[in-house]
Amino acid sequence: MLYCVEMEVRLPANMPSETTEKIKADEKAYAVSLQEKGKWVHLWRIVGRYANISVFDVESHDELHGLLSSLPLFPYMDIRVTPLARHPSAITR
Amino acid sequence: MLYCVEMEVRLPANMPSETTEKIKADEKAYAVSLQEKGKWVHLWRIVGRYANISVFDVESHDELHGLLSSLPLFPYMDIRVTPLARHPSAITR
Amino acid sequence: MLYCVEMEVRLPANMPSETTEKIKADEKAYAVSLQEKGKWVHLWRIVGRYANISVFDVESHDELHGLLSSLPLFPYMDIRVTPLARHPSAITR
Amino acid sequence: MLYCVEMEVRLPANMPSETTEKIKADEKAYAVSLQEKGKWVHLWRIVGRYANISVFDVESHDELHGLLSSLPLFPYMDIRVTPLARHPSAITR
Amino acid sequence: MLYCVEMEVRLPANMPSETTEKIKADEKAYAVSLQEKGKWVHLWRIVGRYANISVFDVESHDELHGLLSSLPLFPYMDIRVTPLARHPSAITR
Amino acid sequence: MLYCVEMEVRLPANMPSETTEKIKADEKAYAVSLQEKGKWVHLWRIVGRYANISVFDVESHDELHGLLSSLPLFPYMDIRVTPLARHPSAITR
Amino acid sequence: MLYCVEMEVRLPANMPSETTEKIKADEKAYAVSLQEKGKWVHLWRIVGRYANISVFDVESHDELHGLLSSLPLFPYMDIRVTPLARHPSAITR
Amino acid sequence: MLYCVEMEVRLPANMPSETTEKIKADEKAYAVSLQEKGKWVHLWRIVGRYANISVFDVESHDELHGLLSSLPLFPYMDIRVTPLARHPSAITR
Amino acid sequence: MLYCVEMEVRLPANMPSETTEKIKADEKAYAVSLQEKGKWVHLWRIVGRYANISVFDVESHDELHGLLSSLPLFPYMDIRVTPLARHPSAITR
Amino acid sequence: MLYCVEMEVRLPANMPSETTEKIKADEKAYAVSLQEKGKWVHLWRIVGRYANISVFDVESHDELHGLLSSLPLFPYMDIRVTPLARHPSAITR
Repeated sequence: MLYCVEMEVRLPANMPSETTEKIKADEKAYAVSLQEKGKWVHLWRIVGRYANISVFDVESHDELHGLLSSLPLFPYMDIRVTPLARHPSAITR
Repeated sequence: MLYCVEMEVRLPANMPSETTEKIKADEKAYAVSLQEKGKWVHLWRIVGRYANISVFDVESHDELHGLLSSLPLFPYMDIRVTPLARHPSAITR
Repeated sequence: MLYCVEMEVRLPANMPSETTEKIKADEKAYAVSLQEKGKWVHLWRIVGRYANISVFDVESHDELHGLLSSLPLFPYMDIRVTPLARHPSAITR
Repeated sequence: MLYCVEMEVRLPANMPSETTEKIKADEKAYAVSLQEKGKWVHLWRIVGRYANISVFDVESHDELHGLLSSLPLFPYMDIRVTPLARHPSAITR
Repeated sequence: MLYCVEMEVRLPANMPSETTEKIKADEKAYAVSLQEKGKWVHLWRIVGRYANISVFDVESHDELHGLLSSLPLFPYMDIRVTPLARHPSAITR
Repeated sequence: MLYCVEMEVRLPANMPSETTEKIKADEKAYAVSLQEKGKWVHLWRIVGRYANISVFDVESHDELHGLLSSLPLFPYMDIRVTPLARHPSAITR
Repeated sequence: MLYCVEMEVRLPANMPSETTEKIKADEKAYAVSLQEKGKWVHLWRIVGRYANISVFDVESHDELHGLLSSLPLFPYMDIRVTPLARHPSAITR
Repeated sequence: MLYCVEMEVRLPANMPSETTEKIKADEKAYAVSLQEKGKWVHLWRIVGRYANISVFDVESHDELHGLLSSLPLFPYMDIRVTPLARHPSAITR
Repeated sequence: MLYCVEMEVRLPANMPSETTEKIKADEKAYAVSLQEKGKWVHLWRIVGRYANISVFDVESHDELHGLLSSLPLFPYMDIRVTPLARHPSAITR
Repeated sequence: MLYCVEMEVRLPANMPSETTEKIKADEKAYAVSLQEKGKWVHLWRIVGRYANISVFDVESHDELHGLLSSLPLFPYMDIRVTPLARHPSAITR
């Protein structure tokens, strides 16, 4: 099942830069891993913002929440989830 | 270039049902045609709403506006466009 | 899977009362049927509003959208869907 | 009487992790206790957020406020309460 | 139990004036009756708006919804209900 | 003249608890005093929030602002004031 | 006492032009009369909108509501009222 | 002086198409004329919406309001005006 | 030219009180000076808020921005500016 | 292609003034450079705010995001991007 997930990152202004770099590197590795597993099927940057629009393909709500809440940046993100159904005019899923 | 496009349809309550059916059929034919041309690359229904989240792949802002404003449902839709850039953690475009 | 669904009804001011009564009766029959099938597991009235908060238990996004878009009042409702996951402190599902 | 309660947690970025763990453990014990007493009748996680949608069944507004303001996470939560009435199409309470 | 109820009236622009007068007279008679019964304990006009802030004192959510949905102006009102608890600094209820 | 006043308290997360207790005690004493003088005629807790809905009865805008800006919690509150007029259907002021 | 009053006019699209002209002429005469009486002390047009920002100087909330609800355009206006107090840095009222 | 002006058009659903075409043609002629006079210095379409972002260069607020309220589409537009000052980092006006 | 300017002050919770007092004194002196020069023609307190509604009379957008950005409280204020035109029903400017 | 970009700066209250001055100087140099290259074609100050409205002319979304995310003030800005198409009534691009 597909979900549109919009994530916006708000890092605390006083976070040490080493911490920031470490979290971002972990986040990237985790994001790549989920994409390779076919869970995180689209990942786009919103122009001008530290934010993304993504599409996830998972088995259940529980699986999605597990993946999202494991993101290293999760404590610093505002996340909105929209469930997606098949559109009657779509020629592919 | 990719754009996320969110469309919400609000048909007037007093539109005759034949008119509605005609517009919807035209809309579907047009949507299928744009998908086949590779312009409208994703089209998903937002669960519970007469609305969709789409991704378009076009050459320019002008081309996108031309496509959207030609939608048979355009006069009855509220449309929001978000330009998408490549994400540094994405493994594909 | 569980979804929280909030529905608000806005009937056109000029809808004939027979039409209104017919739609409401159909809506009620449909709502009862979905409850008996175990799909619509909770249905509460929001005090002071022609609106409800509901919980649905279905197999997929597609099934939920199918059920909601078949509601006789669907063209007159504003619907918001929130996917629900298991809470780590919950003692039941 | 039933109330829909939506809670969103916003912990300060600089809270020591031991404090966080202690508050979360206390919160969980308290939540379990209220569920066992039949006061907190539903507790669901909103997918992708540190937030929940709950239903409480209590005798009065005062009782509900007493329970909510005793939550260990209360100082860090944004809480919205919606009173729920019986819906005429509901087959159970 | 006390509830703060804010009501805003939006009459259709094309409602015949006799209909409007009839509904307003019915609304007034009903409002007076509920005040005399001690259910509608405060009723104030919001300056500059066709709207009011009220306080109701009823036994349950169901009773309140029954009273509000019986208002002659109910189909034309936007109503917001806020449950009120005793304040620890209040010297009366 | 009557004013509806909605106050929401947001204490800084790092305020020392003695300071908090001192301010709250001062606030309570001041609130009781204004109630006894007949200035603060209603004071209700909004269920689930560190917030209240109040009604003040004062001679002028200046008097009300003087009272509110003297609240010990004033620097930490978001306050909204709504002037109230007599409602034509009210049986008392 | 002074009140800032912001008014926005929304005329129904199908109002006959004679009706519109008649209401506007009545509105203007009434506005001039209230200004001459010293009740409506400032009246400015918001650039680009069919809206104004005004200041009224009246004895009470009831008087202000009486004046505003007598405006010929009242049924077609969205009005927001803000009570104004003396500012400690102001050199005049 | 420069003003950013954002205009969104909302035509009534039941406006006859001849009326619509006539208004649009008048609007275009007027827009071209103001551009040629150097009053309307930029005019861009917002992609996907029947809306524009414009910049006007006029002598005064009164002149701008006069120009905008003379637009044939003025009764059907929602207009937001933002005054623009010189930016200290700008290399031209 | 006239501008309506709404200013809301949000001082950091941890600002030392001497700093606060110094800034407020500077702000007052500056506000008085601008009033005496006829630039800041109205200054009213919004009841219940650390905020004001003002009217400025200046030659240009640049002059207004220069005045506002020189306010000692400018870094701690949220400011909204609305250009005001002459109203056709106003009997004075 | 043209994009309207609105930027609002929110510097942390506790940023040392040398840091602030350094960032602002870097920002200015960078802004001037992008203007000279013809990428940042308009830059206006929003009166009364630490914010600007800009127009960029770039080849792609990726280029724009690259430019914006390299702004020295980027971590402290809220940025909104709107793609602009040619307007049918515009006499120049």
